[in-house]
Parts: sequence; structure tokens; C-alpha cells
Amino acid sequence: MDNERYQKGLKHLEEYNSGNYGKLKEKLADIAPDLARFVAEFAYGDVYSRPGLDVKSREIATVAALTALGYAPLELKSHIEGALNSGCSREEIVEVIIQMAVYAGFPAAINGIACAKEVFNRMDEK
Amino acid sequence: MDNERYQKGLKHLEEYNSGNYGKLKEKLADIAPDLARFVAEFAYGDVYSRPGLDVKSREIATVAALTALGYAPLELKSHIEGALNSGCSREEIVEVIIQMAVYAGFPAAINGIACAKEVFNRMDEK
Amino acid sequence: MDNERYQKGLKHLEEYNSGNYGKLKEKLADIAPDLARFVAEFAYGDVYSRPGLDVKSREIATVAALTALGYAPLELKSHIEGALNSGCSREEIVEVIIQMAVYAGFPAAINGIACAKEVFNRMDEK
Amino acid sequence: MDNERYQKGLKHLEEYNSGNYGKLKEKLADIAPDLARFVAEFAYGDVYSRPGLDVKSREIATVAALTALGYAPLELKSHIEGALNSGCSREEIVEVIIQMAVYAGFPAAINGIACAKEVFNRMDEK
Amino acid sequence: MDNERYQKGLKHLEEYNSGNYGKLKEKLADIAPDLARFVAEFAYGDVYSRPGLDVKSREIATVAALTALGYAPLELKSHIEGALNSGCSREEIVEVIIQMAVYAGFPAAINGIACAKEVFNRMDEK
Amino acid sequence: MDNERYQKGLKHLEEYNSGNYGKLKEKLADIAPDLARFVAEFAYGDVYSRPGLDVKSREIATVAALTALGYAPLELKSHIEGALNSGCSREEIVEVIIQMAVYAGFPAAINGIACAKEVFNRMDEK
Repeated sequence: MDNERYQKGLKHLEEYNSGNYGKLKEKLADIAPDLARFVAEFAYGDVYSRPGLDVKSREIATVAALTALGYAPLELKSHIEGALNSGCSREEIVEVIIQMAVYAGFPAAINGIACAKEVFNRMDEK
Repeated sequence: MDNERYQKGLKHLEEYNSGNYGKLKEKLADIAPDLARFVAEFAYGDVYSRPGLDVKSREIATVAALTALGYAPLELKSHIEGALNSGCSREEIVEVIIQMAVYAGFPAAINGIACAKEVFNRMDEK
Repeated sequence: MDNERYQKGLKHLEEYNSGNYGKLKEKLADIAPDLARFVAEFAYGDVYSRPGLDVKSREIATVAALTALGYAPLELKSHIEGALNSGCSREEIVEVIIQMAVYAGFPAAINGIACAKEVFNRMDEK
Repeated sequence: MDNERYQKGLKHLEEYNSGNYGKLKEKLADIAPDLARFVAEFAYGDVYSRPGLDVKSREIATVAALTALGYAPLELKSHIEGALNSGCSREEIVEVIIQMAVYAGFPAAINGIACAKEVFNRMDEK
Repeated sequence: MDNERYQKGLKHLEEYNSGNYGKLKEKLADIAPDLARFVAEFAYGDVYSRPGLDVKSREIATVAALTALGYAPLELKSHIEGALNSGCSREEIVEVIIQMAVYAGFPAAINGIACAKEVFNRMDEK
Repeated sequence: MDNERYQKGLKHLEEYNSGNYGKLKEKLADIAPDLARFVAEFAYGDVYSRPGLDVKSREIATVAALTALGYAPLELKSHIEGALNSGCSREEIVEVIIQMAVYAGFPAAINGIACAKEVFNRMDEK
């Protein structure tokens, strides 16, 4: 295994999105554990840990992209949590998603808001 | 016409992306002038002018989304300029686009970087 | 608020799709009420109310696009209702969706038909 | 070969879009002639020739879908011609494309209008 | 009806994916039976039955495409079964899906793996 | 740098697609050299080099996915070359692309064939 990159990714994940990575790892454990490892190593160890862009801006970019692509609500919800954990306010997240109406159409934006609502509600219930 | 919203959008565009809106308006003038008006009124007057998210973060979101969607290089190049004009560094833009390899795949990211290169080169030649 | 456009959009919605806009407005009320307002103002007040294309043809265009994009079944179902309310027969809607097999592939068309079936069944149960 | 379906499709194409099918057939002749045959047989012989939806509405659906998908400007231009040949006015085509700003975002609509402009200009030059 | 092509498609389906086609046919029976017929005739009778590419490779191509497109989990699961029935090992299917992280991003790959897991679990429970 | 993975990826690329990686590396050299490095390390070092699926099947999967996604003709052409270099015949590649008409629609398949034609012609001219 590629320990340094994995540890770097894990450190990032522990700071910003530990719960969701744990669930992903568990979900992939018996079928594609290497895909979970690649998420930690490549997505977080190689990419998110790069200097040159702050983590909050990275999460804004990801929330925007996943809202626009439209087919990955689970991942969008995970990154809405990641955005909150990296310093985005709820209002900022909502603004990013509303803005996607302009670039990917209203259905994408409306479904993105439904994801945000689910995350916010889940947090308020705790 | 809806003067207040149009003027608000135009003011935003003049500050951040005047050249590209001028070209769009000209391109649409004889076939769909209302579509250009909607861009000023809705995209910029209604959405980009909203408080709750700074313009730089809005451009990061748009660069991310257009890179991920992959089919709109002209609009992506326009927003790479918009991102520079709203305070993004070249490095930050490059980071946003590289990150899209994780969420939309390497082809989308590589094509996004080609757009950024074209914009940066054009600016350096001036 | 932009009363004239909002009222124009609302009038269109009341005629063709009142139930679904009510649900959307409620869903967005506590998180992104302005997105619901934009739907009424921009989508219906600015765009659907334009002369130059009849409402039935507009709904055909939207059912086609949402079937082809594939990721927005809720919005597709809402527009299948809108299409029925603007004078499309069930057969016409089914034809539009089947045709998308040619332009967006069979999975998109099959999923679109599943949405139509759900809408038709719901109406028959009333 | 499946003569009846092929002839039926060809007859439709000759009435509504002969030039573009000729070009497609030529383009595919030495590499994938069966794909051109499938276009005539399946897309036009099986689908477009079906009763239950008039040809004009079929072309509106296709122009909408190809504008929304965004990645197929050649095919979109071909169907803009097909739409004109089946009785759509230029204004109706422009309206369909503008409307896609609502469902697939402004970049898709703007690029769709650029395709329409190219087709209209080409026709005016003749 | 187009008996020869339909029979050819059905024969392919009976060999590789009989259960899922039966379910599709039933689902479409009262609303769009011709769409089910087109699946048998065109997808399986015309395309899958062609020489020039073995069935196993055809299923690999389809699993890859449906994973990358991301919006059709039902069809993806059906083709994961088809891939198994045409000689793919579970490991090969998992590899195809993991690889899509490179071309369509991690969310598409992760959701594809979730589909594979569901199919494999269902088979193990029998 | 992560030498082992990079060398592994490079070795794969040298065997199957050296020319295109050279061009990509050059194109990215002055703006995002790490993105080229990630292609070698992650796409080829981590993913393509995995056991469990032969290289020819991997290229079939990638040609299918890029044809279906539709917006990345440069990458598709590069992988059509990669497919030829890993043992696919021209006929097999054409079959994969034609099949995408079923899953992503005819426009995607027709544009994919245009890419194949360009690659095959370029090779024949040498």
C-alpha cells in the first residue's frame, strides 16, 4: 500500500468528513476495497491536500459540480457536510446550489436543494 | 423591459466580465436577443448579485460546473476570465479544474485545463 | 419582489400545473424560497409565457429534454402532468419519450416511460 | 436487409431531411454503413413514422433533447433543418432552444442558438 | 411485426438475460409495448447479435457506459447480470466499474459498485 | 514524486499509448504538470495495471464510456489508438461504438464513429 498518500488523505478526511468516509469504506469493504483506498489516496491525499486552493473553496467547487451533474445525490450530500465542516455556512451552500440553475438548469438546482435540506434537517435533529 | 434587474446585471458584468457579455449580446442580437437579456437579468441581476456568497466563490462554482459538464468550452473560457476578474489567481483556477478529475473524470479535467491555457495565453499575448 | 413577472408566471402555473408548483414552493419554503420564486418568475413568467410557441409544444420540448437528461424523474413527472394539462394526449407523451431512445438511448427512454406510467396510474386512481 | 423498414425510413427522410441523411450515409459508408442503415430503419422507419405524434412535434422534441444534451452540434443542426422542413417556423425553433436555458442551463441554450444561427445563415446565403 | 429480428433478439435474451427482459416487457406492456419490442428487435436482434465482437465484450462495453452515464441504475444492474451470464467474472465487472473513476469520476464508479453489490448479494441469497 | 506508481504507469503507456501520453504531457507541462503525472500514476499505474481485467477489455470499456459521454473526442481518439495497440481489431472498435447507439443514442454513436474514422485514416496515411 501507498502509506504516505493514504495517511495524508485520511488525515484530511478525519478533519473534514470522517463519518462519510467511514461509511464508504464499509460499503466497499467486501467488493471493491481498493476503490475506497483510491478515494483516500488520490481524491484526498493527492488532490484535496494540495496547496493553491483552500479547502472551503474546494468543497464549493465539488458541491457545484455534483449539483450540475445531477446523478449522484449520495455524494452531493456527503460533500454538503464536507462544505459545512470546512467553514461554509448553510447560506453559502444554498447559494452555490441555486446558482447551478443558471449553468445546469432548474431541475439540477431543485434536486440539489433537496439534498441540502436533508443534510441540514439531519443535523438539526441531532 | 425589466430595467432594474437588467441594470443590476449589467453593472455586475461591467465590473467582472464586460468583454464576454458584449460578444454574447452581439452574437445573439439578430436571432435571440432576449436570451442575452435573460443572461444579464436572471444570471447576473438575480443570481450573481445576491448576497450570501462572494463573487470569487461564485466563479469557482461555475468553473467547476462547466468543467464537469464538459460540453461548453466557450462558456468555460468566459468564466475563467470572470474568475480572474473576481480575484482568483491562475493557480486557484487550475486547482479547481484539476479537482474535477475526481468528480467528473480525467477527460473533463484535461479539456478544462486546455480552456484555461487558451485564456491565459491570450492574456499574456496582449 | 418582481410582482408583474411573478404574477404572470403564477397565472400560467395555475392554469397548467398548479398542484406541482404548490408542492415545490412548500418544499423550498424554509431553505431556498427564492429558487421557487425564480421558477415562477423566470421559467414561467419570462419563458413559458412568451408568444412564438404554443404551451403544448413547450411541454413536449421539456418532456423530451428531461427524459434525455435522465437524472430528474420528479421534474419529468411534473412536466408529464403539465403536458397533459396543456392538451397532450397520453399517446403523444408516450411517443415523445419512446423517441428519446433514438437520441439519448434506451435506458433514458425506459426510465421516462416508468415516470409516465406512474403519473397515469396516479390519475386513474383518483 | 430489412427492406420495408428501410424504405419507410428513407421515404420519411426524403420528405423531411434528405440532404443530411445523404451526407451521413456517405460519412459512414466505408467504416460503419450499418449504423447509417439503422438510422434509416430504426430512427426513421420505426420511430419517426409512427402515428400518435405529428412530425413537427417530433422535431421539436429532438431539437429540445439535443440542445439539452449539449454535445452533438452536428446532429442538432441537422434536426433544426428537419424542424424547418416539417413546418416549424424559425421563431418556434428559437423558442424551443431558449426554453432549454430553464431545463439544461444557459450554456446549452446559447450553444443551441449558435447552431440555429448557422443553419439559418446557410439557408439565407443560398 | 418484424418476426425474424424479434426472434433473433429474443433468442439472445433467452440465453443471456431472460429474467430481466421478461420484467421489462411486463413493465411496458400496458403503456409502451413497442418500446419493449424495439429492445428485443433493435438492441438485441440488430446490435448484440452482430458478429465482430463477442457477447462478453459487448456486456463490458455496456456496463462501462451505464456506469459512466450514471443515471440508469436499473439498467446497469440488468447488464451486470447480463455480463455474468456472458462469461464475465465478478472481479472483471468490478474492475470495469472501478476504471470508470478515471473517465467519469469517483461518484459514478462508487454508485456503479453499489449496483454490482446489490446484484451479487441477490444472487448469493438465492 | 511517487516513483514506483509513476514508473508502472509509464511502462504501461510506453507499451500501449506512448505517443498520446507524450502529447498530453507536453500540453500540460507549463500549466498543470501534476495532472499529467496523475494520469500516469493513477489512471495507468494504479488502475490500468491492475490484474483482474485484460488490457484489451479495459480499452473496450473506455472507448464505450467516452463514446457514451460524448464530450471528449480527443480522449476518445487517444483510446481508440490504445484499443488498437492492445489487440482490438478495427471491426471490434466499430462494434463497440455502434452499440452505444442503444445506450447513449445515435448522435453519440455517430460522433464516436467519426473519431474512429479519423484515427484509422491517420494510420493509413502513414
